[in-house]
Amino acid sequence: MNFAPDEEFQTTLDAIRSFVREELFPLEETFLLEGFGSVLPEINEKRAKAKRLGFWLPQIAQQYGGMGFSLVEHGHVSEILGSSPIGHYVLNCQAPDAGNMEILIEDGTQEQKERYLDPLLAGDIRSCFAMTERDHPGSNPTWMGTSAVLDGDHYVINGSKWFTSSADGASFAIVMVVTNPEAAKHLRASQIIVPLGTPGFEIMRNTPVMGKRGQGYGTHSELQFTDCHVPVANLLGEHGAGFVIAQNRLGPGRIHHCMRWIGICERAFELMCTHAVRREVAPGKTLASQQTIQNWVAESRTQISASRLMVLQAADTIDQQGTKAARDEISIIKFLVANVLQQVLDRAIQVHRALGLTDYTPLAYWYRHERAARIYDGPDEVHKRSVARRILKTYT
Amino acid sequence: MNFAPDEEFQTTLDAIRSFVREELFPLEETFLLEGFGSVLPEINEKRAKAKRLGFWLPQIAQQYGGMGFSLVEHGHVSEILGSSPIGHYVLNCQAPDAGNMEILIEDGTQEQKERYLDPLLAGDIRSCFAMTERDHPGSNPTWMGTSAVLDGDHYVINGSKWFTSSADGASFAIVMVVTNPEAAKHLRASQIIVPLGTPGFEIMRNTPVMGKRGQGYGTHSELQFTDCHVPVANLLGEHGAGFVIAQNRLGPGRIHHCMRWIGICERAFELMCTHAVRREVAPGKTLASQQTIQNWVAESRTQISASRLMVLQAADTIDQQGTKAARDEISIIKFLVANVLQQVLDRAIQVHRALGLTDYTPLAYWYRHERAARIYDGPDEVHKRSVARRILKTYT
Amino acid sequence: MNFAPDEEFQTTLDAIRSFVREELFPLEETFLLEGFGSVLPEINEKRAKAKRLGFWLPQIAQQYGGMGFSLVEHGHVSEILGSSPIGHYVLNCQAPDAGNMEILIEDGTQEQKERYLDPLLAGDIRSCFAMTERDHPGSNPTWMGTSAVLDGDHYVINGSKWFTSSADGASFAIVMVVTNPEAAKHLRASQIIVPLGTPGFEIMRNTPVMGKRGQGYGTHSELQFTDCHVPVANLLGEHGAGFVIAQNRLGPGRIHHCMRWIGICERAFELMCTHAVRREVAPGKTLASQQTIQNWVAESRTQISASRLMVLQAADTIDQQGTKAARDEISIIKFLVANVLQQVLDRAIQVHRALGLTDYTPLAYWYRHERAARIYDGPDEVHKRSVARRILKTYT
Amino acid sequence: MNFAPDEEFQTTLDAIRSFVREELFPLEETFLLEGFGSVLPEINEKRAKAKRLGFWLPQIAQQYGGMGFSLVEHGHVSEILGSSPIGHYVLNCQAPDAGNMEILIEDGTQEQKERYLDPLLAGDIRSCFAMTERDHPGSNPTWMGTSAVLDGDHYVINGSKWFTSSADGASFAIVMVVTNPEAAKHLRASQIIVPLGTPGFEIMRNTPVMGKRGQGYGTHSELQFTDCHVPVANLLGEHGAGFVIAQNRLGPGRIHHCMRWIGICERAFELMCTHAVRREVAPGKTLASQQTIQNWVAESRTQISASRLMVLQAADTIDQQGTKAARDEISIIKFLVANVLQQVLDRAIQVHRALGLTDYTPLAYWYRHERAARIYDGPDEVHKRSVARRILKTYT
Repeated sequence: MNFAPDEEFQTTLDAIRSFVREELFPLEETFLLEGFGSVLPEINEKRAKAKRLGFWLPQIAQQYGGMGFSLVEHGHVSEILGSSPIGHYVLNCQAPDAGNMEILIEDGTQEQKERYLDPLLAGDIRSCFAMTERDHPGSNPTWMGTSAVLDGDHYVINGSKWFTSSADGASFAIVMVVTNPEAAKHLRASQIIVPLGTPGFEIMRNTPVMGKRGQGYGTHSELQFTDCHVPVANLLGEHGAGFVIAQNRLGPGRIHHCMRWIGICERAFELMCTHAVRREVAPGKTLASQQTIQNWVAESRTQISASRLMVLQAADTIDQQGTKAARDEISIIKFLVANVLQQVLDRAIQVHRALGLTDYTPLAYWYRHERAARIYDGPDEVHKRSVARRILKTYT
Repeated sequence: MNFAPDEEFQTTLDAIRSFVREELFPLEETFLLEGFGSVLPEINEKRAKAKRLGFWLPQIAQQYGGMGFSLVEHGHVSEILGSSPIGHYVLNCQAPDAGNMEILIEDGTQEQKERYLDPLLAGDIRSCFAMTERDHPGSNPTWMGTSAVLDGDHYVINGSKWFTSSADGASFAIVMVVTNPEAAKHLRASQIIVPLGTPGFEIMRNTPVMGKRGQGYGTHSELQFTDCHVPVANLLGEHGAGFVIAQNRLGPGRIHHCMRWIGICERAFELMCTHAVRREVAPGKTLASQQTIQNWVAESRTQISASRLMVLQAADTIDQQGTKAARDEISIIKFLVANVLQQVLDRAIQVHRALGLTDYTPLAYWYRHERAARIYDGPDEVHKRSVARRILKTYT
Repeated sequence: MNFAPDEEFQTTLDAIRSFVREELFPLEETFLLEGFGSVLPEINEKRAKAKRLGFWLPQIAQQYGGMGFSLVEHGHVSEILGSSPIGHYVLNCQAPDAGNMEILIEDGTQEQKERYLDPLLAGDIRSCFAMTERDHPGSNPTWMGTSAVLDGDHYVINGSKWFTSSADGASFAIVMVVTNPEAAKHLRASQIIVPLGTPGFEIMRNTPVMGKRGQGYGTHSELQFTDCHVPVANLLGEHGAGFVIAQNRLGPGRIHHCMRWIGICERAFELMCTHAVRREVAPGKTLASQQTIQNWVAESRTQISASRLMVLQAADTIDQQGTKAARDEISIIKFLVANVLQQVLDRAIQVHRALGLTDYTPLAYWYRHERAARIYDGPDEVHKRSVARRILKTYT
Repeated sequence: MNFAPDEEFQTTLDAIRSFVREELFPLEETFLLEGFGSVLPEINEKRAKAKRLGFWLPQIAQQYGGMGFSLVEHGHVSEILGSSPIGHYVLNCQAPDAGNMEILIEDGTQEQKERYLDPLLAGDIRSCFAMTERDHPGSNPTWMGTSAVLDGDHYVINGSKWFTSSADGASFAIVMVVTNPEAAKHLRASQIIVPLGTPGFEIMRNTPVMGKRGQGYGTHSELQFTDCHVPVANLLGEHGAGFVIAQNRLGPGRIHHCMRWIGICERAFELMCTHAVRREVAPGKTLASQQTIQNWVAESRTQISASRLMVLQAADTIDQQGTKAARDEISIIKFLVANVLQQVLDRAIQVHRALGLTDYTPLAYWYRHERAARIYDGPDEVHKRSVARRILKTYT
């Protein structure tokens, strides 16, 4: 198969897989039962170990201390990391930090890089990205309520955000705000760095999501900005370039998610098959002998394999021709893989019966957390419409 | 429509609906954010009020202090109660107590009724039903590991159970145990009442389910029986009649679940429509104007209405001809409605976007909790097989 | 079950069922292999016999020589007739004649009734209904190209129609034409009776549909009107009332189709089960033993039973409250049952393997012919949108 | 994309595409309305022209006069040919002849090659492959009723076959017969060449399939063998090797079908999009503006692209590692693409409304003919089971 890793890269992949299985899988039980915070010390140890082993920032260019992988290569890595709920975090390629790193590398000033990027790359701090608003659909990024007004050498920010993931404990936020309300739709917004602790910037609460408010990295916060002053030096890129930067960030970001989902799918598939061959429904008769279960295995294998090919191909298009050329492919894998993910998790739970509902496997965790996959970064129906309109236009 | 309530009964239904909407909906927010325990005092107040209003035990014969409704009538009531996560509890018709009441009424001795049934009917105590075991599939109720051996005038119970719902805080458990291991498959088990606190009977832990161990009524426990002695007087019905009693209990129990699910569906449908007409995706343009959302509304309406007819018809068959005659209908609605429920909840969440993932609506609660619907009381695939085999047999 | 026939009506139903199975099933083979025309003489004999037995015009009031059944009752009859591809024809309740009879009864003048209705009721002639146009979507009945202009005491018709079913061999057509192009949308059209043979009215060809141009009753024609003069006495109802008459006709018409589809579903289900229990996939091991087949049996049974309840309920609403009150119910069953039909036929074919593709069973015939079910009288997506919009409006 | 053709091969593909569109598409109308026979003279002209252009036997090695393409390359060609119902036939790579060529190349004696293979390669004769039997499931190729008994230097064949495609007008049949009834299951059968016209070999009838008995190449026949004597020299490969030869034939054969289906899908997709942008549902408002249609476009694009990648990858595995290594991949694409095909055709028809039911587009032809895709060469459920069992075995 043509996206297949060459021998050297395969060796790296195998090493990362062993690391994930031997070092991270054992942390899973505590993570699932007690939450991210309870296992943070161990996670930080594993981060240090990963860094020592050279498994650090796979998605980042070598000049910035990363492994310098292409997007196709990172796809392979990401699939492995995705098999554990903490895999990406341990290699410091987790959302939203990975996206913020990209923005800072691409659009940050030298000063911004030193102050925000370097500690982020080092894993010393965390960050967040504040774009979504409760009263405005995330699917329409040109319509926002939070604004920043220039006042001398400061921006004054007012408004609120929600679903700002990992704000709790972050050092800074990149905030999307309207700065040019009268400009053309895609030139209205800017992105500004706002350090946590800036007066007028408050985390109101961590939103209860799927029954939990979460802890630290694993949270989604509601933010309030009230006459919050930040220096103009905190502007990222051009005044009015916020939407363009966001677009650049979201393209690869969607790929990253899809790659991680493939990893979750493979893990769920493995759990499903393993349980099916072990679980007896009558003495000597396993679940694996039931044709319905067999159908789910065959259909899941098919969907996961097809999804992987589609994701790798989209990554290859970006590697070779850039994000814009891959626009349709990115939209397609976004809704394709998010739906495959939901179906595979659902089947894996159904095969596990009651056990699948418990936190004794990671399935119920993913079932809850990844329901969001069909919503964030563009709901299914928004991506379908975008793709279809572009395709249909070619027939007029 | 022919299952339609007559005028008098409709008046009762309207009164119950008003009670649920005015008295119970306001408790929802705290319930969702803080859990069952935090809102228990208010719930108990509402119980008292419901009782005063005569809304108590709708499913129980009048001679036992209930409202004496037929199963079709209870279906209508149950749909209303199901619209709130605490509806059934407040009218004292919640699982597993409702099922245990039926067993005690049907098979309890006079002494058992006085000691266990009466306080249950009064709402003074809670109970649980311990049948499922971790190492034996619940779908094969003739294969169990927990046993009871007669030792003089006591049974000595050994073994373990899990997914014993509401054991935490219950006064007694009805426990399904093997008493006749050599008998024909369906004559091996018995049901025995075991009061909490009996030596040798221990709640090991509340199983973490979908991220939570729960509180009190809202728990699923792992039980351990170690040489647990209970008097033979605690036997329910005949020695060896456990399976038959369970079957009698599960038939109407499945109907009860289906009826409650219809109520959840209707509430989710209402939330979906309400959100769709209010939420703007662009200034002046609501979600309701999108054809994809319209498709979901039409399909959900169709599925819910069809499900309700099927459930009421099955209830009618039981009312008129008994549970056995309704065997296929019960199996059919079990998997039909559980799947419709999952689909309707999924669509309602998707329409709500990020809001649907939060605990600011009950959707995410039901999404987590009712994933179990396709598993408990027989997974989809088990019911499909049972129905199909009986049907196919008529063609041979 | 509450829509269940009472004893007397059940006796009638049983007699009709016997008639269909004993008299019509044997004609099926020739019908399937050689087409409608080849079996027409036998069909006409069966018509005469049915009439003698009093099985004639079940849907028509007794004063017009019919059996006078309510719509719910006709639903039960129609299901039985639908089990044979010629059932409705033999009892003279087939589309499009049944609809035309209703129009003539409702809106015909005394003279029109004598000339067109009476021989239609007697089964002496056939008729057709020309509404659909190639260049205008049938789903938008207010937009048409065929017009009629008043010229003295004649209408002069110009334009073309297609998918005019059963025009070949019909005695007259009811033609939908624009007469008031400047009027409000729903007042633009009129319905006019045009006898075949009227100068300027030509059947251009029978459209090849699913590989066949068909024969006589079993055709769909392309019509051309060129300065076709018909007397004003041929106008049905008011000038400009064409759309209203069409709406009145389509409501029950959709119910009739749904009822017939239930009959097809039941026959397909019977064929599927019968084949499954007989067909060995290995010596001694039948298809019926495979869980996938069992799933299809259970799911088909569920879908058909739910569909029947929904159809009978819609019929009951019309019987009790009129067509308008049943608007949503009619739209819902239209797309619900058409889709169930397609799925059940698809599964039945898959169970029959290669045999299902042949014309040795009626499955392949229905597979081809009933693909139209999701299109005619309003495609699925049009009905879904209509229902959803009306529902969503109640939430604003 | 990595399976992408290089520049030179792309030039060839473009030339073939032009040939198909310019030379074959114009024959479509007659083919669809009048059948294969009516357009045969034109088809034969196009065959001659294709041969002159060097577009002949793309799947066959150059030493045998073919284009010598790898399976991946043939996949690209086949997709182009599949866009026309007669594409494969014109380049002489149509089933069942393509499969028979492979058998003769692989297992034929020198004499068999001269007598049967050479004229087949030249396109001078046609052939058929008789394996399926009415009373034995094709999915169990070790269980057959037709036998051949050695009698001196002849085999004496008795039994019957059906669904022998293209027997009508063929010069010879390759017939699968039981020769070693007592041997191990997979060693029971042999393949024998039986020329049409051999005494005792009779075509009983062409089976009516989806309403038609067909003509010549486009038929499926029922064969009868009654003491039919053929020389032992007509045995293909070893006595008892029939099953092994069949397996070798079916692997690539399934790939060939899948490749062709991709071509049909792409054509249907093109027709759907073209119609959607042109067809107005109201003045100025096209079908393409409806979100439901857009969903179908996006979903179809996704499914087709994913299917193509899966097929090309399976072809690549065969090219690189042989058929056996690709066993799971072949089973997976067989059911994946057959289902995608059915869904895409169904959506394309639904978009075309009534027009989609007519023979004015090829959609209705494919809808009828390709329903078989989910059945021949192994029904969906058989392939799913095979794949799943092999996968599950690796987890035990």
